[in-house]
Amino acid sequence: MWTEICQPRFSETDALGHVNNTVLPVWFETGRTPIFKLFAPELDPNNWPLIIARIEVDYVGELFYGKPVEIRTFVLKLGNSSMTIGHEAWQDGELAARGKAVMIHYDHNSKSSMPVPAEIRSELEQHLRLAGE
Amino acid sequence: MWTEICQPRFSETDALGHVNNTVLPVWFETGRTPIFKLFAPELDPNNWPLIIARIEVDYVGELFYGKPVEIRTFVLKLGNSSMTIGHEAWQDGELAARGKAVMIHYDHNSKSSMPVPAEIRSELEQHLRLAGE
Amino acid sequence: MWTEICQPRFSETDALGHVNNTVLPVWFETGRTPIFKLFAPELDPNNWPLIIARIEVDYVGELFYGKPVEIRTFVLKLGNSSMTIGHEAWQDGELAARGKAVMIHYDHNSKSSMPVPAEIRSELEQHLRLAGE
Amino acid sequence: MWTEICQPRFSETDALGHVNNTVLPVWFETGRTPIFKLFAPELDPNNWPLIIARIEVDYVGELFYGKPVEIRTFVLKLGNSSMTIGHEAWQDGELAARGKAVMIHYDHNSKSSMPVPAEIRSELEQHLRLAGE
Repeated sequence: MWTEICQPRFSETDALGHVNNTVLPVWFETGRTPIFKLFAPELDPNNWPLIIARIEVDYVGELFYGKPVEIRTFVLKLGNSSMTIGHEAWQDGELAARGKAVMIHYDHNSKSSMPVPAEIRSELEQHLRLAGE
Repeated sequence: MWTEICQPRFSETDALGHVNNTVLPVWFETGRTPIFKLFAPELDPNNWPLIIARIEVDYVGELFYGKPVEIRTFVLKLGNSSMTIGHEAWQDGELAARGKAVMIHYDHNSKSSMPVPAEIRSELEQHLRLAGE
Repeated sequence: MWTEICQPRFSETDALGHVNNTVLPVWFETGRTPIFKLFAPELDPNNWPLIIARIEVDYVGELFYGKPVEIRTFVLKLGNSSMTIGHEAWQDGELAARGKAVMIHYDHNSKSSMPVPAEIRSELEQHLRLAGE
Repeated sequence: MWTEICQPRFSETDALGHVNNTVLPVWFETGRTPIFKLFAPELDPNNWPLIIARIEVDYVGELFYGKPVEIRTFVLKLGNSSMTIGHEAWQDGELAARGKAVMIHYDHNSKSSMPVPAEIRSELEQHLRLAGE
């Protein structure tokens, strides 16, 4: 599991008084940075062998401005060229949102998926969260 | 089905050259405005009887700056107090993203769900898209 | 003057109940689209001969969700390679924000400014707003 | 001076390959958090005695994804009820953007400005940057 602390921004709140739902995909994308670094060590967008195929977010609580949020990121499933990433957002000891992202190792030039290389796969496997955990 | 035309903003693109994936939940939320108006005719955030429980987005193509995007919104499922909304983003005649949002008719004071009123329900039913359509 | 109607998005409000201040630079950038089209008719980011040097925003009123906003855009000053663009955001007949943006006609390859071509200059001059207007 | 390290988000880049200009006002607002805490120690938006009157940003360089940005925040001018805050964004040892924000100590109920209290004033004075510094 990777963890990251994020401070909600004032501009991320909405008129209902808490963090707007559309902010979670942004925070979860940020939570995937350690995975991005495995595939693109320089984090150079000109050399970016990943695309995103799907996201899901379940909103199970509210998130407020003024208190840190812990973003937890882990691997749920590892396919040949695709991977399903899991995310959670915690504030004040409570789970506020859960998410998933399906990413594909991808060659933008040939527009085709590529197998996840063995060394990256073994790194990712160390962050696998098994069902029920 | 409700439709809305949206012009991608320059700030919504990312370094990969097309619209960033985190923008779709924002556009789809905007696509739900006609539904918001059914529950909150004045669109007054102080009188907002809805919460969002879940979103999903499937990215099936790229979206580019400089060309209009059509956001199509429809009802997939109507529960007692919850509803599942469907979304699609089309550009240049091609489907680029599909989404879902689960919303709940909700009383923020009592913190409990409320049945969807009959007159709103019958409005929503006119926008139901059946499986296979 | 160019005008554009924009509907505030729910995600653009903040916990104070109105549109967050950081949204105005985004709307004003969108208001510059007709100017972008003069310099980049295809609106292709790979062929984008402009950079932004400065922005200013004065907040003179509040902007609310649920009512359209009119973005007015005009030319304040035309230099050899630079131009100062003016912006206003109106809602319900009241001016809520004023802005400026300084842009430069720019060659990203040679990293140097370029004179504004005569035919674009004469187009821009038709949108000049003189002091006191 | 207050400093904060911020990691550019992928969604904050644009199709020109670097951080979009509209992101700077967001980062600079975040840089004002220590000032917000002086006026609203709980950072509770329901008890928020500040409004923003003006922002300025000068873009003097590019900001890239993948490298931390240091946001420096300081006080440029202290009026009776208003204050002018200065901001800078540095990456890789180079200044990329400079900004200002004018904020007013404000009572949202009476809709009138309030003098900055003495104890907050003396805190702010410790972060004054004199002209030429």
